[in-house]
Amino acid sequence: MSSFTPQDELAIATIRTLAVDVVGKANSGHPGAPMGMAPVAHVLFSRFLNANPKNSKWFNRDRFVLSNGCALQYVLLHLLGYKLSLDDLKAFRQLDSKTPGHPEAGHTDGIEVTTGPLGQGFANGVGLAIAQAHLGAVYNKDGFNLINNYTYVFTGDGCLMEGVASEAASLGGHLQLGNLIVIYDDNHISIDGDTAVAFTENVEQRFLAYGWQVLHVSNGDTDLGGIYNAIAEAREEKNKPTIIRLRTTIGYGSKQQGTHGVHGSPLKADDIAALKIRFGFDPEEKFAVPQAAYDLYAEFGKRGATLEAEWNSQLQAYGQKYPNEYAELTRRISGELPTGWEKTLPVYKPTDPAQASRKLSEIVLTAIIPSLPDLMGGSADLTGSNLTKVKSSVDFQPPSTGLGTYAGTYIRYGVREHGMGAIANGLAAYGGIIPFVATFLNFVSYASGAVRLSALSGHQVIWVATHDSIGLGEDGPTHQPIETGIALRATPNLAFWRPADGNETSAAYYVAMTSRKTPSVLSLSRQNLPNLVGSTIEKAIRGGYVLHEEENEDLTIVSTGSEVSIALEAANKLKAEGIKTRIVSLPCWLTFDQQDEEYKLSVLRSGAPILSLEALSTAGWEKYSHEQYGLPAWGASGPYLKVYEKFGITGSNIAVVGKKVVDFYKKKGGEVVSPLIKAFHL
Amino acid sequence: MSSFTPQDELAIATIRTLAVDVVGKANSGHPGAPMGMAPVAHVLFSRFLNANPKNSKWFNRDRFVLSNGCALQYVLLHLLGYKLSLDDLKAFRQLDSKTPGHPEAGHTDGIEVTTGPLGQGFANGVGLAIAQAHLGAVYNKDGFNLINNYTYVFTGDGCLMEGVASEAASLGGHLQLGNLIVIYDDNHISIDGDTAVAFTENVEQRFLAYGWQVLHVSNGDTDLGGIYNAIAEAREEKNKPTIIRLRTTIGYGSKQQGTHGVHGSPLKADDIAALKIRFGFDPEEKFAVPQAAYDLYAEFGKRGATLEAEWNSQLQAYGQKYPNEYAELTRRISGELPTGWEKTLPVYKPTDPAQASRKLSEIVLTAIIPSLPDLMGGSADLTGSNLTKVKSSVDFQPPSTGLGTYAGTYIRYGVREHGMGAIANGLAAYGGIIPFVATFLNFVSYASGAVRLSALSGHQVIWVATHDSIGLGEDGPTHQPIETGIALRATPNLAFWRPADGNETSAAYYVAMTSRKTPSVLSLSRQNLPNLVGSTIEKAIRGGYVLHEEENEDLTIVSTGSEVSIALEAANKLKAEGIKTRIVSLPCWLTFDQQDEEYKLSVLRSGAPILSLEALSTAGWEKYSHEQYGLPAWGASGPYLKVYEKFGITGSNIAVVGKKVVDFYKKKGGEVVSPLIKAFHL
Repeated sequence: MSSFTPQDELAIATIRTLAVDVVGKANSGHPGAPMGMAPVAHVLFSRFLNANPKNSKWFNRDRFVLSNGCALQYVLLHLLGYKLSLDDLKAFRQLDSKTPGHPEAGHTDGIEVTTGPLGQGFANGVGLAIAQAHLGAVYNKDGFNLINNYTYVFTGDGCLMEGVASEAASLGGHLQLGNLIVIYDDNHISIDGDTAVAFTENVEQRFLAYGWQVLHVSNGDTDLGGIYNAIAEAREEKNKPTIIRLRTTIGYGSKQQGTHGVHGSPLKADDIAALKIRFGFDPEEKFAVPQAAYDLYAEFGKRGATLEAEWNSQLQAYGQKYPNEYAELTRRISGELPTGWEKTLPVYKPTDPAQASRKLSEIVLTAIIPSLPDLMGGSADLTGSNLTKVKSSVDFQPPSTGLGTYAGTYIRYGVREHGMGAIANGLAAYGGIIPFVATFLNFVSYASGAVRLSALSGHQVIWVATHDSIGLGEDGPTHQPIETGIALRATPNLAFWRPADGNETSAAYYVAMTSRKTPSVLSLSRQNLPNLVGSTIEKAIRGGYVLHEEENEDLTIVSTGSEVSIALEAANKLKAEGIKTRIVSLPCWLTFDQQDEEYKLSVLRSGAPILSLEALSTAGWEKYSHEQYGLPAWGASGPYLKVYEKFGITGSNIAVVGKKVVDFYKKKGGEVVSPLIKAFHL
Repeated sequence: MSSFTPQDELAIATIRTLAVDVVGKANSGHPGAPMGMAPVAHVLFSRFLNANPKNSKWFNRDRFVLSNGCALQYVLLHLLGYKLSLDDLKAFRQLDSKTPGHPEAGHTDGIEVTTGPLGQGFANGVGLAIAQAHLGAVYNKDGFNLINNYTYVFTGDGCLMEGVASEAASLGGHLQLGNLIVIYDDNHISIDGDTAVAFTENVEQRFLAYGWQVLHVSNGDTDLGGIYNAIAEAREEKNKPTIIRLRTTIGYGSKQQGTHGVHGSPLKADDIAALKIRFGFDPEEKFAVPQAAYDLYAEFGKRGATLEAEWNSQLQAYGQKYPNEYAELTRRISGELPTGWEKTLPVYKPTDPAQASRKLSEIVLTAIIPSLPDLMGGSADLTGSNLTKVKSSVDFQPPSTGLGTYAGTYIRYGVREHGMGAIANGLAAYGGIIPFVATFLNFVSYASGAVRLSALSGHQVIWVATHDSIGLGEDGPTHQPIETGIALRATPNLAFWRPADGNETSAAYYVAMTSRKTPSVLSLSRQNLPNLVGSTIEKAIRGGYVLHEEENEDLTIVSTGSEVSIALEAANKLKAEGIKTRIVSLPCWLTFDQQDEEYKLSVLRSGAPILSLEALSTAGWEKYSHEQYGLPAWGASGPYLKVYEKFGITGSNIAVVGKKVVDFYKKKGGEVVSPLIKAFHL
């Protein structure tokens, strides 16, 4: 297997020429990296990588991540026999094709994670490797090495410059992830030209510092044996992740090879012709794939199919011997939740004591985790503040540290929010795991790059985002979110929940857990919140509902989270003045938007003005209200009740504001129409 | 100077006990780090740091950054004689005090940059050091070493785990910033407990990999001579930044020293009493500062005042010999722009050829940079796409690289968006420099943590954010911003500009340049945009204006950037159907919001429905319109005109939508009131 033949050379030349044609036809894309990485891609897939192109979801497949996401991946998927035709390659970067500009998970068969935004794939790889280490530790038994795949990541200079990759690399080293193999395409070129202009650190030494095994192949263009040996050696190291620094020539074979001219633009026609001649291809023919190349990669498919069949037999035998573990593992693989898990969700009465919603979240986690081993989570060094570690949980740690085991479910992420978010995407992408992560709401924005990819890729990641407003008090404006809420709400397929009390917190978890393709951010208070009359899990899971009803109301106040009880207080004060005020709680816009029109219009109905109240920026609230109260700018440092008072978010002041709104609309006259009634919907 | 006396010990004990009292009185904060870092703080300020507490803005002062921002800084500022009284210390974390939870630039005398959000201060430090290296290279002359300060950064484990710090450290090493000295408080404790749970990398080796000098002090608790020698050695290294790993005991002196119990919570009363006795203080007395401590720090103030006086004389002599450089330098220090710079802004006629606004931005930069040496900028490895490097500019590079000089103004940031944003904050904080940075709009979100601190701190940073919508085409959804616009618009004191053509691009730069305390994000197209009839710089600098007027209109379309010309096309089509459509261009919400009420109501007037149009999320547009057209979710990969068509953002479809809006409001009846008319304003 470590000897290479002209057939291998032909396959590599096919990858290179096909990549050139794919980018050339689209007249857009990055030909250089695919051309440079063709040899290592070929060696990896033809000799090592275990996967079945006929079933890209086989659970124990090796995971492959192209962190510098580009056309290389499509070329490989096609040659290897995944559901991607030559016509799909020809439609690269065309509207509604299977081959968008950068690979997207859930969009194209065989793509594990979405890459292109740099650094993400690298960090996803750490998550994929954690998932294997964990599930292997939980389910493997003597004689049943059911979950033992490798994760292979290709990365370029760009990814390694990104902080998100640094964070993940440091944690990956700490966690001693021997199943993770990163191949670094050291081609000395990025968009700005030679990496000498900005990236002169010693990458090998940096990864040694992180505790990685570091290998090196000096000729990645043609030394297939050297590449083979490095990957083989990487696989032998069981207690450290490995990075192989592979010196390649970007755009190998082009007249412009080794320059940034081949990085992000198609090659010129004469260059393509010369390159094809050099590799023994017909310069006139496009998208040529010699049958010998298909034949070689068919072996990959056969190996994968055989491995999967063997694995399935093994799984059945496992089922005989370990029926409980089998049942749980297969359930997790299928993506189903255990029956009845939701019955463990806490339910509250208004007489139950006030608690912070971060504490309510801890109570939920404590209640549901015993029946939901799928939950694997942690915090970016704010465990005691986020309240994410339940007593029963064990740290996910390398056994040698004495601090936990790989079977543990609690991840100590360190102060690495962006890495955490991207690692969680990898955990979700692996399958069988529902990752939760935690930090202050304000610092979710450190991880924006990863959060939007959760949403785009449909990764079910749950953010426990505590200290979610000026209600955190003393830490002050540097820690108080203002714009964070609307940024998350404006992200498609992302559920931003801001529960007002215990039942709403349970509801938020219910929807977050059952939305298997949607990430959720649970925005939770530091301060105590009373349990509200009128809140139930059943109502709250609709995303918005009438918490306090009044017939022929003068005003509706719509609010979320910690401000709902303040709205109720205002309503009581207004009542004393003869102003009837309904209260709507709207903990999740995304979920509310998904309800039927009739329901929505019954909640935010016409007839009286609607005032929104939230201790964040008012931006976006105009969609659900006529008038908006919130923070005009930054928050302030001080005991939280004083900060609320400073900004007028008190029952008394909101009553004053409410009266102003009622008077204004009375004076204005005419019917007050629900803000939901529009000329059209997108 | 390197010998230490009991007076030094007393001063250190004063810092420790004062920090304990400050946090204790607030009943909130982080006592551990100040207690552990008191010795190094004392050695640094009493022996090395040059600054004048009576004039915290003296230009050549050494810059001090407490990256792990906490009460230590307030204690030091008070003892050193800055404008911070004991009463201010007693008001720590109280409403409207000078001592908010974490230090904020612009809020408290002597604070250089805002810290608390971890990793930021470290990266700011790299920016401060770049600023010195640059201005020194430009203005220093033989015998006039006018700008030669050091930048000192204190950092903890938390900051060093953050990717933003990794990015900045890598670039700082590349740039060989010998004037940067970082002191790493290696206390083995973060909020989650021992750093062994998540942070076991070899930090020294990592910084060696980045090209830093690495020093080590094994007893940071009491070895004042060791600390002194390390800082002295760091100052001698002129070609590398230095990190000193200082092993300290967190909460030194407390019963709980060395544990995370002293990290983020006040000490208990008995612990405080015991600690005070240990350090020779009265256990009953709070906020005690022995006169001897004040006396010692008075020497710091004297040294600083003398240095400033000498420097001022030197500056005058410099002015005699180098009047032009003197004039320019003093202008830059004063924060004034050169007279008449704005006359260089390009002006366009509708007949000028269509161009991408990223190209229009390049034309502005090319025009204004010759008269604005203050501009120092670069891109996160997208120079050829962002078009930020003008022909006349030279790379800011260490001379030894042969790639540029320190006098150069173009910074090659590498693929390090977050580091770039935080470094730019440091550049702005230094003074005399207006930093601009660049990436795709979508990847500004990688830097959210730094961007919000620009806005909070009032740092004038200009983001050249190109490829600002689905108009980037082929790269697809991974690169197409959706939520980015509203996230930035909802950030207080941040100007998000989306210019529609040449004149609006010039206007955006005009306002961005003249807003000395406001960061701006210029959202710029990849695709060509026509120059519009009716656009002028004068109108556009109001943030919003009537581009195309109609009397007794049936409809107003309000739009920004690349969609304004599409709105005009729709208006033309509607005209053919007898529907009169006004067009409002609203390139900057923040600037528009700052105009007087009458003007705003004249632009977005009552009488006819207003439809917004933008190729981003519609979130937030309800504030300025009755109906909203935009992207319902993610974009798509394909040639950009096809992508626009897929989402109905074409003249024809918007005409159809516009008609629907007109019909809807006709049917509805009643007066259509401007969305700007509200019951109250925040």
